[in-house]
Amino acid sequence: MKNFMLYEGDTLYLQLYNCIREKIEKGELTTRLDSIRKTASNLVLSPSTVIKAYELLEKNSYVTSKKGSGFYITYHQQHTFYPEDYMKNEDFKYSYFNEECAIDFSSASPKSNLFPIEKLKSAIIDILNTEGEKALLYENPQGNIKFRNIIKKELETLKIKTSVKNIQIISGAQQGINLISKVLIQSGDTVVTEEPTYKGAVTSFKENGGKIYPVPLEDDGINIEKLKEFLKYNSVKLLYIIPVFHNPTGVSLSGEKARILIELARKHNFYIVEDDSSSDIYFKNRIKPIKSYDIYNRVIYIKSYSKVFMPGFRLGFMILPQEITQSVVRTKYSTDISTSGLNQRIFSYFMENKIWDDYTDQLRKEFSKKQNYLYNKLKTVPHISFEKPDGGLSFWIRLPCEITGEAVYFKLLKEGVSIIPGTVFSPNYIEYIRLSFAQCSYDDMDKGVTKLTEVLEELIDLNI
Amino acid sequence: MKNFMLYEGDTLYLQLYNCIREKIEKGELTTRLDSIRKTASNLVLSPSTVIKAYELLEKNSYVTSKKGSGFYITYHQQHTFYPEDYMKNEDFKYSYFNEECAIDFSSASPKSNLFPIEKLKSAIIDILNTEGEKALLYENPQGNIKFRNIIKKELETLKIKTSVKNIQIISGAQQGINLISKVLIQSGDTVVTEEPTYKGAVTSFKENGGKIYPVPLEDDGINIEKLKEFLKYNSVKLLYIIPVFHNPTGVSLSGEKARILIELARKHNFYIVEDDSSSDIYFKNRIKPIKSYDIYNRVIYIKSYSKVFMPGFRLGFMILPQEITQSVVRTKYSTDISTSGLNQRIFSYFMENKIWDDYTDQLRKEFSKKQNYLYNKLKTVPHISFEKPDGGLSFWIRLPCEITGEAVYFKLLKEGVSIIPGTVFSPNYIEYIRLSFAQCSYDDMDKGVTKLTEVLEELIDLNI
Repeated sequence: MKNFMLYEGDTLYLQLYNCIREKIEKGELTTRLDSIRKTASNLVLSPSTVIKAYELLEKNSYVTSKKGSGFYITYHQQHTFYPEDYMKNEDFKYSYFNEECAIDFSSASPKSNLFPIEKLKSAIIDILNTEGEKALLYENPQGNIKFRNIIKKELETLKIKTSVKNIQIISGAQQGINLISKVLIQSGDTVVTEEPTYKGAVTSFKENGGKIYPVPLEDDGINIEKLKEFLKYNSVKLLYIIPVFHNPTGVSLSGEKARILIELARKHNFYIVEDDSSSDIYFKNRIKPIKSYDIYNRVIYIKSYSKVFMPGFRLGFMILPQEITQSVVRTKYSTDISTSGLNQRIFSYFMENKIWDDYTDQLRKEFSKKQNYLYNKLKTVPHISFEKPDGGLSFWIRLPCEITGEAVYFKLLKEGVSIIPGTVFSPNYIEYIRLSFAQCSYDDMDKGVTKLTEVLEELIDLNI
Repeated sequence: MKNFMLYEGDTLYLQLYNCIREKIEKGELTTRLDSIRKTASNLVLSPSTVIKAYELLEKNSYVTSKKGSGFYITYHQQHTFYPEDYMKNEDFKYSYFNEECAIDFSSASPKSNLFPIEKLKSAIIDILNTEGEKALLYENPQGNIKFRNIIKKELETLKIKTSVKNIQIISGAQQGINLISKVLIQSGDTVVTEEPTYKGAVTSFKENGGKIYPVPLEDDGINIEKLKEFLKYNSVKLLYIIPVFHNPTGVSLSGEKARILIELARKHNFYIVEDDSSSDIYFKNRIKPIKSYDIYNRVIYIKSYSKVFMPGFRLGFMILPQEITQSVVRTKYSTDISTSGLNQRIFSYFMENKIWDDYTDQLRKEFSKKQNYLYNKLKTVPHISFEKPDGGLSFWIRLPCEITGEAVYFKLLKEGVSIIPGTVFSPNYIEYIRLSFAQCSYDDMDKGVTKLTEVLEELIDLNI
């Protein structure tokens, strides 16, 4: 479990680091930092804590120390690459939308020559020929009934029994998370998440007044002991997990832990929000969602189709416990009336005609090979450590010698390579990066890993 | 201004009416109402107020009075037509999604043989041939940059100057209203609306903690004197208006009032949220949005393309004041990441190739004729009163002899005709209906107006 160790009891300097970093990014600090002594005395911290924070800022190129003269802010120089204003915002800092990078290790949505673009064209033509304008009228806010029926049948193959009445169509998983947050979270409610986890979910819970309690992730899912301990003294509204091919780590929840979580949810009266974007991309056996263990109806299952299929398409669904269905539909309606009816029809067509099955089948074969290839490449990179997940499209890599993910991020960006630093998934994962092969050719992987090796060597030299 | 008179000082019985009505609809009252005397004494009301409320419940078929025995609830018998659970919810009561009705006077989205379905097919094929899979990847959360540039140019023809940096693409107007509510409204903030107004907006403001203050609408826009009076003693966060071909009344804001509102917004430091879904459907001259008068940048302009174009398509944009742009993009991201990139490309294609211009041009001609036709038909219906708007797709009709819109709604529904009762737009407009010709053939209009006449005659007989 070395890979998921947390910096427990060691977060004071990180808090200071993040606080100063944000001030620099917002342009509230532009010249130099206060002296170590002054900051320590102002904030009643030990000088060693301040030194650790300042050193981390320097490592991540926010400041440069000049002997005898202090720490100077150098951040703005490297941040001119944001093409749009909004990207300066904390949420977009490590933007997934960077089209400038030649080698994209950041996006987890697959680019594939296998995409059935001709079949997509035929589907659209067929739908418009058959239904005409009707395909473009207002859709049922809960979702097209035919599409929901297809989903219901599909779910039976995963041993999930539900009714179309409990299926809500959504414009991607993020919308599902947002609807659930709006309906279930009252200000001050506690949401437990895995640590690390998907930032978009955390943002949504916080926006709706949720307080986040992160529980460390182990290589078979969330740490049950720590969760139980927390539940002893605290009431929890939601537990948010990504049980299959977790983002960013790639680990999956064991069946044993799944059963325990379901029992805990019943006993302590919380809902489990299951975020499933990647379970289709398995390389060994298909792993069942925790929803299929859900004998007490405590799991809200959120499935994104678009993430893997075509992310710009914005499509997914949720399975809802009966008691919240009406509130969710009502909130969906006031949010955006309904999800594109044309897209729902296209996806129904893809599922009915087995195009979706064939495509995901081919994707699995292609990306299993790519995962192997990148795994072997990464083994040649000195000092880093990582595991090989049974599915998904990313590696979660621990960096050596106290090198930070952000330092690697900035250095690689200058070389035209994008990755995601671990801090996007938890402020405690400063020495990690997520490296995805979803958008990469074999050539990209060769070149990208060479660049990564060079950058790491450079940083190790600097740190020594 | 007879048409927009409010029942001021007369709302106590309406409050009681609505309260009982909701209890009946939720199934909390199922057998009979308490006696008039008992209710009056319980609630410290005069018996005459209770009688008025009970009579209205009877008029709207919620209860039936039996001589000497009281008022019996009869509501559930007529509400078995809701095909899905969520429709029992208050927000969906007069559902726009009723596919059962042969004659649809409720939907305000046009059905037209003119829809360029062949051009839509070509557009999609062209886009997929040119861009391939790229058209299906994650889109910029603020919106496709090419699409925003096209919109910017289009806006110049309306004398609106803005930057692509201040344009936010949205999945329909409702999403725009929702994003603005989330970003700007703090719990307890006041939102002024026109009365009557679009219910979806009111729901969204309330959900985000807004308090609604409705100001009566006149035939040249909101009542300025009443607004000024309110502003004297109250601080207002937002003013929500539909200035061009207002929904449901069809009236438009005069240029003079537009200028006054802009000055008031500056002086009293509130934003004006302009909801523009119908300004393209003008039958005389194009009416400029209030945004084109906005010298102080106080107007948030929300434009739906999809409502008129193809509502299931979910597409529109907002023009934002610079100071809120980043918060809105961030909220959009946490709401649903981005709007379908394919749909943005399709609409760009339609605008670039003048398909959109040609289509709206033809729509205007077609619906101008239909409006005339229905206007002349409606003039044959005894006792009702209404105006002929200069655009849009609806008539706002005042019913005679204290007949309620809900009674007409239920009676017509049994005849296979759907309309929208006035109470959907304000609890005070009980004697109004909105009648849209967007989905109607000439034959539908003939038959529908005949049915309306019959139902009104029947109800007048009952009331006398």
